Amino acid sequence: MPSEKLDTYFKQVDVMTDSFINRLASAVAIPSVSADPALRPKVFAMGDFLVKELKALGAHVEARELGKQPDHPELDLPPVILARYGEDKSKRTILVYGHYDVQPALKEDGWNTEPFELSVDEETGKMFGRGSTDDKGPVLGWINAIEAHQKAGVDFPVNLLMCFEGMEEYGSEGLDDVIREEASKFFKDAEAVCISDNYWLGTEKPCLTYGLRGCSYYSITVSGPAADLHSGVFGGTVTEPMTDLVKLLGTLVDNKGNILIDGIKDLVAPVTEEELALYPNISFSMDDIYTSLGSKTVIHDDPIKVLQARWRFPSLSIHGVEGAFYNPGAKTVIPAKVTGKFSIRTVPNMELEDVDRLVFAHIDREIAKLNSNNTFKRELMHAGKWWVASPKHWNFEAASKAVQKVFGCVPDFTREGGSIPVTLTFEQATGKNVLLLPMGSSTDGAHSINEKLDKRNYIEGTKLLGAYLHYVAEEKQV
Amino acid sequence: MPSEKLDTYFKQVDVMTDSFINRLASAVAIPSVSADPALRPKVFAMGDFLVKELKALGAHVEARELGKQPDHPELDLPPVILARYGEDKSKRTILVYGHYDVQPALKEDGWNTEPFELSVDEETGKMFGRGSTDDKGPVLGWINAIEAHQKAGVDFPVNLLMCFEGMEEYGSEGLDDVIREEASKFFKDAEAVCISDNYWLGTEKPCLTYGLRGCSYYSITVSGPAADLHSGVFGGTVTEPMTDLVKLLGTLVDNKGNILIDGIKDLVAPVTEEELALYPNISFSMDDIYTSLGSKTVIHDDPIKVLQARWRFPSLSIHGVEGAFYNPGAKTVIPAKVTGKFSIRTVPNMELEDVDRLVFAHIDREIAKLNSNNTFKRELMHAGKWWVASPKHWNFEAASKAVQKVFGCVPDFTREGGSIPVTLTFEQATGKNVLLLPMGSSTDGAHSINEKLDKRNYIEGTKLLGAYLHYVAEEKQV
Repeated sequence: MPSEKLDTYFKQVDVMTDSFINRLASAVAIPSVSADPALRPKVFAMGDFLVKELKALGAHVEARELGKQPDHPELDLPPVILARYGEDKSKRTILVYGHYDVQPALKEDGWNTEPFELSVDEETGKMFGRGSTDDKGPVLGWINAIEAHQKAGVDFPVNLLMCFEGMEEYGSEGLDDVIREEASKFFKDAEAVCISDNYWLGTEKPCLTYGLRGCSYYSITVSGPAADLHSGVFGGTVTEPMTDLVKLLGTLVDNKGNILIDGIKDLVAPVTEEELALYPNISFSMDDIYTSLGSKTVIHDDPIKVLQARWRFPSLSIHGVEGAFYNPGAKTVIPAKVTGKFSIRTVPNMELEDVDRLVFAHIDREIAKLNSNNTFKRELMHAGKWWVASPKHWNFEAASKAVQKVFGCVPDFTREGGSIPVTLTFEQATGKNVLLLPMGSSTDGAHSINEKLDKRNYIEGTKLLGAYLHYVAEEKQV
Repeated sequence: MPSEKLDTYFKQVDVMTDSFINRLASAVAIPSVSADPALRPKVFAMGDFLVKELKALGAHVEARELGKQPDHPELDLPPVILARYGEDKSKRTILVYGHYDVQPALKEDGWNTEPFELSVDEETGKMFGRGSTDDKGPVLGWINAIEAHQKAGVDFPVNLLMCFEGMEEYGSEGLDDVIREEASKFFKDAEAVCISDNYWLGTEKPCLTYGLRGCSYYSITVSGPAADLHSGVFGGTVTEPMTDLVKLLGTLVDNKGNILIDGIKDLVAPVTEEELALYPNISFSMDDIYTSLGSKTVIHDDPIKVLQARWRFPSLSIHGVEGAFYNPGAKTVIPAKVTGKFSIRTVPNMELEDVDRLVFAHIDREIAKLNSNNTFKRELMHAGKWWVASPKHWNFEAASKAVQKVFGCVPDFTREGGSIPVTLTFEQATGKNVLLLPMGSSTDGAHSINEKLDKRNYIEGTKLLGAYLHYVAEEKQV
């Protein structure tokens, strides 16, 4: 058993805490926002940062160039960084994935600190900064683990293959092709896959995730006049696109979370008894969700129903409107062309083509009801399928032992409401079991203002990633 | 009759055409956007520009400072510029108003030219630039008129009082107090008021405007969670503010322009036979509105119904949503707090307090129906009352003669769909007749991209303003 080696490794991680936090601070300081063309050089800079760190530790690194960005042909896509640490044929080979780009963030959105400056609150241990938890902390966790093994003189237990992309927050453009291409090349020795890009269910207890919802993202565009109009001059004379759009958006979902699109519910797999039996063991209370939300504006008052709503039932969210007035203050404009955006989180056994068909049929029916002379366009902007894996696989067993070693408790076996489309791609391309092993907690606020990673999650999480590799090396070949 | 003097004046205006266009170019080059705190110094610069021009022509100028901006206490309000040209007790005194601030404009909004650079298309005579028609062209028209009289050696026919403000596009903050204060002071000699800040009905024939709709601008704010959420993690578990908001916005108006708020229609004065008889004489066709809209997406197919919808019936427009996702692309966010903005254009005899009461009662009823655990707030953001004047007054008679002299046709007597709240303030504070004498045409695109003023409207408009002053000087005292 790897117990003694692990203790040595853990001690080394504790010793290196400040150095690991500095590493995270350096990474957060690079505003690698993939959605912002002006910041594209910073995404490349973040890739370079990883290459340098990996090479300094002796990893073999290759950058896969992806060419130009299809919807911004003037932009080069940031590379997928492939790395291999260890070439020992007698060891297991594990493939890990993470991403080095981040969501947009502006101080004026409501951040309490500069988003691209890691701000460590020593009292609470909260480390604020865009990308701290999504997904720079976890990516650096693997690098920290390698470094701590070297410094502690503990033999690294596996050959580690790494795949770090720079476009995750913008649809992972180009990644799927690389994974399929490399499945029989760079990734050919991989025996299992581990992805650290999701979150604990609460704030105390780690989890292992075996399922994800998919996401089908749609837009409805309504256009009428050639340009925005003054509402005083034209109000009452023109068919206003916003009037049509709010009516259409109002037909999609009710505020109890019921999707009002005919046929959607029929696509959902029934809940089994076996599945239901899993829920009561999970550490999750209404207070956990109240804390995550910062409010009690929940749809369900029962923790199991909340988890089911998040994990295994579809949901529909209306994200916003492009083309209308969005600033503070009052502008008397009739917007000429407005695009409503919404998405559906999908679950087994919803076939994505069926979802599209039902959504478009619904929208077309509702458009017909409007009897409008405006022009309508509805489209699928992107789609990622749901995924479910077997939590009984040795990959999960190893991770479960690692959690028990580092945190002293059995992990929750969870699904996730969010989609991580790459999960399914890795599973399909490699044919191997994929494990989601999160580092951050439920209150980290990925994609929101004041994103943070707790120091405990980062440091114990670095221990966990290392411990997982030790246990996975010991698991019986199946 | 002033015919000979007028011909001399007109010739001088023609001679000075290039110089007047240069003056407009200098004014457009100052991005005096009152809504943008960063551009506040440019609003002051535009005020200074007018002061300099007026002083150079020998006018007496006073700047009324307005203190700090209530909703931005760090900002100084730009001054109201008061000017007097002429002190001859034997002459009539006319008060004119205009504004020197402009709407926001960014090239990337879709402008074909730089918005703050006057671009003259020599072939069509269109002069593109933010503020060209709203309202820098008309303001400079008065200054041009003074200068051309001086250069032509034609005695200026009236004492001209001028009132130019710099916050019109941001609610005319502070102006009403100045007008009320100065009614018995700087404005005390005024015998009539003329405002040039609206538009011809079409593109060929000038109009005199004797009525305006009011505008009551409302917001509905729905808030739930403490911060924006990831729709994958929280979709299906939280009561989404956007779901509630689109439902509420969908209850306000239909796409045929019918306001769905109980009781609003009952407040509208019935159309009289006398009023109906005015419409057939007005030069307005469906093609005019198609051209203005750049589309045929109209509510009414009959020109008289279009004019009535614009002038004498209320309308409700939904302007947009603050707090939701508004950029291009796809963001999987559940907005935590969203504010819908809409406004109602009001007409005689709608008492604004009644409108507010009915709007709030409607919203409260609809909120109750939602049975939501979100928090709702609805408020009146600002209100300006409708206005109707007598088109038989000598002030209108003089303007009508001026139109016939310059353009060779009887003007349309029109109302306007937009609100110009200052009109009512001038009428109430001075007790004098107020005339709206527009310079620009219906296709100028004030508040839109590619705002322009036709060279013809600017140059013949300068003649018209001067001619109006000659005729108004001759009108019998009533």
